[in-house]
Amino acid sequence: MYFETTFPVRYYETDQMGVVHHSNYIRYFECARNAMIDQGGYPIQDCERDGVTIPVVEVECKFKHPARMGDVITVSASIDKVPMAKLVIHQTVRNQEGALCAEGDVTLGFLNKATGFPTRCPDRLVQLIEESLKDK
Amino acid sequence: MYFETTFPVRYYETDQMGVVHHSNYIRYFECARNAMIDQGGYPIQDCERDGVTIPVVEVECKFKHPARMGDVITVSASIDKVPMAKLVIHQTVRNQEGALCAEGDVTLGFLNKATGFPTRCPDRLVQLIEESLKDK
Amino acid sequence: MYFETTFPVRYYETDQMGVVHHSNYIRYFECARNAMIDQGGYPIQDCERDGVTIPVVEVECKFKHPARMGDVITVSASIDKVPMAKLVIHQTVRNQEGALCAEGDVTLGFLNKATGFPTRCPDRLVQLIEESLKDK
Amino acid sequence: MYFETTFPVRYYETDQMGVVHHSNYIRYFECARNAMIDQGGYPIQDCERDGVTIPVVEVECKFKHPARMGDVITVSASIDKVPMAKLVIHQTVRNQEGALCAEGDVTLGFLNKATGFPTRCPDRLVQLIEESLKDK
Repeated sequence: MYFETTFPVRYYETDQMGVVHHSNYIRYFECARNAMIDQGGYPIQDCERDGVTIPVVEVECKFKHPARMGDVITVSASIDKVPMAKLVIHQTVRNQEGALCAEGDVTLGFLNKATGFPTRCPDRLVQLIEESLKDK
Repeated sequence: MYFETTFPVRYYETDQMGVVHHSNYIRYFECARNAMIDQGGYPIQDCERDGVTIPVVEVECKFKHPARMGDVITVSASIDKVPMAKLVIHQTVRNQEGALCAEGDVTLGFLNKATGFPTRCPDRLVQLIEESLKDK
Repeated sequence: MYFETTFPVRYYETDQMGVVHHSNYIRYFECARNAMIDQGGYPIQDCERDGVTIPVVEVECKFKHPARMGDVITVSASIDKVPMAKLVIHQTVRNQEGALCAEGDVTLGFLNKATGFPTRCPDRLVQLIEESLKDK
Repeated sequence: MYFETTFPVRYYETDQMGVVHHSNYIRYFECARNAMIDQGGYPIQDCERDGVTIPVVEVECKFKHPARMGDVITVSASIDKVPMAKLVIHQTVRNQEGALCAEGDVTLGFLNKATGFPTRCPDRLVQLIEESLKDK
């Protein structure tokens, strides 16, 4: 399952080093993840309405090349494996010239919204991922 | 009712102009407002648990002097009038030398969390404000 | 001079009230302003390279209707008058159903980057605005 | 070298899950790092004035327990080794009850501000760290 989304850097995302603050790549990652499941027909707000919240349990990110104001970046999310208790997503941020700005893995868990306890990945999301992996 | 809180500027709050991004003063204002009612014994999370959310309905802010990384700022919130349907709070941000960085008025409304409709300011908050105005 | 740009709400922009945090509309406004002058051929980074920074000196914003995760918002910026020392921009945020989420005026100043002192609006920006107003 | 700093969660840092958005722990980490070198007498703005910027080159973070509005968190930064080309800092976020909310390692690089090329850790920062490690 692969998805990418493209948008310009926002001015407030820069810092006094003159580049995008590192924490924002973590936020860019989230934009691509949510757009991916949105396009798959199961947006995050539906998932939460179905009683499952999807907290991030781990982030690993390498910052390779600064993104700057004026850049139009493309953020990717890809899933290689059907999730059980956890879902690992590989993510990248590239600028308009294709330079790799940041790359990392984000691990999501699944919580029953009512009890706060861990639960399995919602069936609809499992199906979405299974179908996309079949296509490969 | 007057309250102030002091904290250092955070690096990620700066932008490529080398100063605190203007949107962050709006956030600083919120910090002082919440610390004020927290100290008054009625923190925002209790208020929300009591079924009332307090959305911001209007902000007016003048940006006078840039705050910078390294500055330790003091943010004030003051209330002059017992609220009915709305609550107006006057707010300032000053740096460690007393220079006025930003100044403005924030108007809050009150919503019944269950219905989403406007409601009156919660009694406990009215009492807090009345008592503080009596002290003057 | 009128411009609008459309993008989805980002998850991290929501708060525990379940809606977009008010400070983010101020940031959305900036996105539309920068996209407008970018499209006009004079992006903010060129302007800064030309030695002029454009601080926000005043913001007035009314929050009318909450934007939520899942919304795709359209942010507008419009200029009615050729700027001298200051530039006033009227801005709106609407959701996909056309509901007005926020509306306000943002006033920009112009600073000589080297001296830090106020300066006039850069000629290229004045021309951009004059031409667009002629078209009306 | 060990440092910790304590501050309350800010309302705008929460998201619609009702907890602090994961990206903010990355920002909390930065607050503790900067406060540490500030207290050591070599604040980040001096470092930048000396011509060295300190980009984050890698972040690893595990999110263990949600921080919430109302929590007062303590963020730690610790350094175990004198840096050469890179500086690794171990960081934690705990709430007022001592629960570990997030834990991770942040790796910093050093760039010559003028050339943009990698450089060594500034001498003053090396000395700061050496002295603190001697004390152990």
